[in-house]
Order: sequence, then structure tokens, then C-alpha cells
Amino acid sequence: MTDARLDVLCIGNAIVDVIAATDDAFLAREGLDKGSMRLIDAEEATRLYDHMGPAREISGGSAGNTAAGIAMLGGRAGFVGQLADDQLGDVYAHDVQSIGVEFTTPRIPEAEAPTARSLVLVTPDAERTMNTFLGAAQALTVDRIDEDQVRESAITYLEGYLWDPELPRAAMERAIEVAHEAGRQIAFTLSDGFCISRHRDGFLGLIDGGKIDILFANEDEIMALTGAAGFEAAVAEVRPKVKVLVVTRSEKGAIACRGDETAQVPAEPVERVVDTTGAGDLFAAGFLTGLTQNRSLHDSLRIGAIAAAEVISHYGARPEADLKALVASKLG
Amino acid sequence: MTDARLDVLCIGNAIVDVIAATDDAFLAREGLDKGSMRLIDAEEATRLYDHMGPAREISGGSAGNTAAGIAMLGGRAGFVGQLADDQLGDVYAHDVQSIGVEFTTPRIPEAEAPTARSLVLVTPDAERTMNTFLGAAQALTVDRIDEDQVRESAITYLEGYLWDPELPRAAMERAIEVAHEAGRQIAFTLSDGFCISRHRDGFLGLIDGGKIDILFANEDEIMALTGAAGFEAAVAEVRPKVKVLVVTRSEKGAIACRGDETAQVPAEPVERVVDTTGAGDLFAAGFLTGLTQNRSLHDSLRIGAIAAAEVISHYGARPEADLKALVASKLG
Repeated sequence: MTDARLDVLCIGNAIVDVIAATDDAFLAREGLDKGSMRLIDAEEATRLYDHMGPAREISGGSAGNTAAGIAMLGGRAGFVGQLADDQLGDVYAHDVQSIGVEFTTPRIPEAEAPTARSLVLVTPDAERTMNTFLGAAQALTVDRIDEDQVRESAITYLEGYLWDPELPRAAMERAIEVAHEAGRQIAFTLSDGFCISRHRDGFLGLIDGGKIDILFANEDEIMALTGAAGFEAAVAEVRPKVKVLVVTRSEKGAIACRGDETAQVPAEPVERVVDTTGAGDLFAAGFLTGLTQNRSLHDSLRIGAIAAAEVISHYGARPEADLKALVASKLG
Repeated sequence: MTDARLDVLCIGNAIVDVIAATDDAFLAREGLDKGSMRLIDAEEATRLYDHMGPAREISGGSAGNTAAGIAMLGGRAGFVGQLADDQLGDVYAHDVQSIGVEFTTPRIPEAEAPTARSLVLVTPDAERTMNTFLGAAQALTVDRIDEDQVRESAITYLEGYLWDPELPRAAMERAIEVAHEAGRQIAFTLSDGFCISRHRDGFLGLIDGGKIDILFANEDEIMALTGAAGFEAAVAEVRPKVKVLVVTRSEKGAIACRGDETAQVPAEPVERVVDTTGAGDLFAAGFLTGLTQNRSLHDSLRIGAIAAAEVISHYGARPEADLKALVASKLG
């Protein structure tokens, strides 16, 4: 992949996370499914925000978190996502660009739609429940895809969440075409169990149609996708359909399959899990960084596990520690 | 103080903190004085923001942090500060109101000036260096003071930083008059050594003029204010001029004086100091909460030390833990 200008181009919803600690009683009162991501409109965003406690604002968005992680691990990352020209848009653009991620998507006026935000409620068990107002992120049109940038990227990484809004879905389908025409690879994350329940046929169509080279899922997601009776069966069903399959299993570690090869790692120990937001995104960042550095499947999984462990040890889905140094100290 | 509707009304600059980890080399390159707060204009704010790394946005402002701490400790707190009607203004208003602080100051249009922000650079030694763009906060005029609210508050707490911009200085002088006419008390924090070097005569005028009932300072600040040869001499010089004097001394603990009475506590142990932003503000919150609950000087200092220890254990100047439960577990 040495002829590529970027290692990984990540395309996703550009979202600022608004993160508040809460308790299970609050989720119950609000009728929220713990651990899920639901889409909300502006009115519900205002209502829920008025009910929730004080928060911190940290850039997020699944693919954006992955791009940030790759850059912090020393990889050449790009990001494509739609912001508005408002204060939260300034924050998002700063955060992604200041760590060296290439990000050039032009913004839309705030009057059309404000920058997306996700109200992230974190319970004492560190589980996050996300309530996302997509705002400007829904306006990611096909013409926002810089086709040269896609062609110049070894891997284009897409989040399943992009399938929710109509315009970004088309943008993502175009990115897949362009990447494959240029002989590049497509990586895809299933994102969320509820997202799969909304778009199972679409996701299966992508996978069965050979559109996905590298697939990321967690245990729940691969079960929801396949409807298989057990984890082994689900993995066996999906692995022949993609070049690389990566499945994360929380405290049970993670597994990667490539052809006949299978690698497995335990979860990285964490002193105290504070907020699981971004665990999957940073796992993907670590794994893809390893892959683009031609590391073994096993070592790529290890980098994923190290990056995921860092991000769940504090609030927010962007790494706080020096990830590159952390990996070097643990893996060499 | 049982006839008061609010225990403490805090008046200060309403500022969103933009907090980034950095290193000493960055401070040196930018010519920044570690540990200080400097005022910057919009242009410098943009320039420095472009240079600094990814950040998290958390509501801050000295008196705002104190109000938040008092509310979290179970006290009846109010806050007065000037925001714009922009996204950062929404964030600030939400954060302070959602923990039960009374906050009714009308906002100004963003076109006049945007909500204030402070670029807070945190070095690995947990020291913070603040670069504050005051924006809308400078527009806190005398008519923003709700005189009834001041009269109904047992203590009105003012930050020394308010002395920097002209309009808020006048607002604060009016608040002092109104409070004293109503037989209420004025608490004041010296805020920052550099702030004292800018306004030493003004601060001494307030203290010598009997305008301050409860004075908060740290060791450096009381030395800068008095120019005394040693700590003991500085305390001896100031204590007769105020009803209560509280001096914090970082890892050396804190001391409080009231008339002939002197109380002292050691610093509360902290597992890992991450970011010292807000330590003094939360100390004041804890001490004032104790005082309004008619606790002893010693126990009031202890509550201050517990609240300060919590806030320096993570990024941001607003408490993350349940402060009330924390104090109950340690003090009863």
C-alpha cells in the first residue's frame, strides 16, 4: 500500500459528543435503551438536553474517532464529514485537524442545519446511551466525496451509521465504487445493533455483493446480522464473504479472520472503565494502523485492544494518552 | 443566615474552558507564563487555537465553578454572568442551570460579542496556563445585577478577574453596595497573581475600605498583595482587615482566620493530579458551603479541601463525582 497518499480515509457523521454522567433510573424515566444509539430530532434534542445534567463537549462520531486514533498512532488519516459553520463546527474541525488528520469537507451554513451533536449518557457501569441529532451531518452529499482523495487512500473506512440518512448513504455508495475502481479496499463497521435492525438487508447486500473487504463488528452485531445460533456459527457464516473479518467481544477480547488464518487476543487490562464510548472506533483505528503497517493479524488486534483500552479509561471517545508511545511500550 | 433565599450568589466571567494537554516546550515556544491567566483578543484566540492540540469543552469561569460546586454540595447557589446567544452560551447556561444554580442573566446577541472562552493548556505536571478571550463576558453591565437577588443572598461572592474589564467592575461595585446595605456579606477571591499585579491598588482599596468580609487567596496571591517578607507576616497583615481570611497553600493545605481564631487543615490526598484548574474555586465552594451551614472553620476548610481534591483529579474545573456524598463519607 506504499503508493497510497493516505493509509485510511474515514467517512462518517461529524458529531460533537455532549457527555453527561447519569444513572439507570434516568434512562428508565426517559424510556432509553441502554447501550444503543437512537436518532432524535431538534425538538427532542432540546427536551432531553434540558433534562440531563452538566456535560462536557468532546468531538466524536464513529469514523471521526477512528481517524483521530489512526493519526495519533502515526498513520496517515483523512476524514470526510459534514459540519455547519457554527461554533461546534469550529470545535470539530479544530480537533480533527490539530492531530494531523486531513479534513477538507466544505461546511454548510448554520441556518440550513447546525453541526450534529450526540447526547451521550454514561451510567456508573461505564455503558453509554447515545441520542444523536444529525443536523448538518445528514447533508453529506455525493459531491462532498473528493474522488481523488478516495483513490489516493489505501483503505476507505465507512461507518454503518451513514446508512441512516439518505444523502450520506449515496455518498458512501459512490466512495465504494471509486475505491474499488482504483483497486483500493473498503472497510466497514456495522456500528450498532439497532442500526442493523434498521438496515440489515442493506448491510447484507453490501457484504454479499462483495463491496466490503474489511468488516468490523462486535459480538452482538454479528449475531444480529446473521441471526446465527451461536458466535462460532456467525463468524463461520461471514468470514468467507470478506477478506478480513474483525469481531470485538468486550472483556472476552477480539478475533480476526483472513482466509484460513484466525488470530485472537484477550482484552487489554484497564484499571477503571469510565466510559465505553469509542471502544469499537479505537479498536478499528488500532487494527487498521497495524494492517497498513503490514503487521501480523495478531499484532494488529493487539494495537486495537491497546487503543480501545485507553479510550474507555476516561470520558470521551478521543484518546487522551500518547497512543503511539503506549503501543511502542507494549508491543515494540 | 436562615432568612436568605440563596446561600451564595456568585458573580463572575461566564467562560467555557477549551482544555488541551500540552508540554512545556509548547508554552516556551508561545512565550506563555506557566500557571498564569492572561487576557487575549479574538485574533490571538484564533491564532493560539490553531496551534494547540485537540481539546474538550467544559464550562468554567472562576465564580461559575464555585456556584456549581456549592450547588453540588447541596447549597442554594446563584450565578450572574454575561453570555451571548450562541452555541457556547447554550452549553454554559445548560451546565450551570442543570445542577440547580439559579441563573437568569439575559444574554446578548452573538453579533455583539461571542461567549467567552479560555484556552486552557495543561502540562504533564497538571499545571494550567489560561488564555482567556472575554468576549461577551466584558459586557456585564450594572443593570445586569438583579438587586433583589443580591439582597436575598446571604453571601455575594466576587472574583478578582471581574476587575479586569470596565463594565463588570462597575457591576461588582454596585453589588457590594447593595449587599452591604441589606446587611449581607461580600466574599472575594484575589483570583491570580498576575491579576493582582494589574489591580493591586484596586484590591487593597476594597480590602482597606471594609468592602470585603470574606477573603480568599492562595499563598502567592497574599504575598503579592501585601509584599510582606513571609507567609506569616502576610497573614498577620491582612487578617485584621476582613472578618474571615482563607488562604490555600496547595500541597501544604489551607488556613482560615476569623478574629482571634485560626484553623488549619492539610491537603486532601489525591491519587493522581491531572489538571489543577478550578482548585481554588472549588475550595471556596466547599468553605462557603460549610460556613453557610454554620460548621466550624476547621470543618469548612475540610469541605473545601475535599472539593478541591476532587476537581484536580480530572480535566475540567467542574466536579465529576457526587461531592455531597463524598463530603458525607469523609466528614459526616
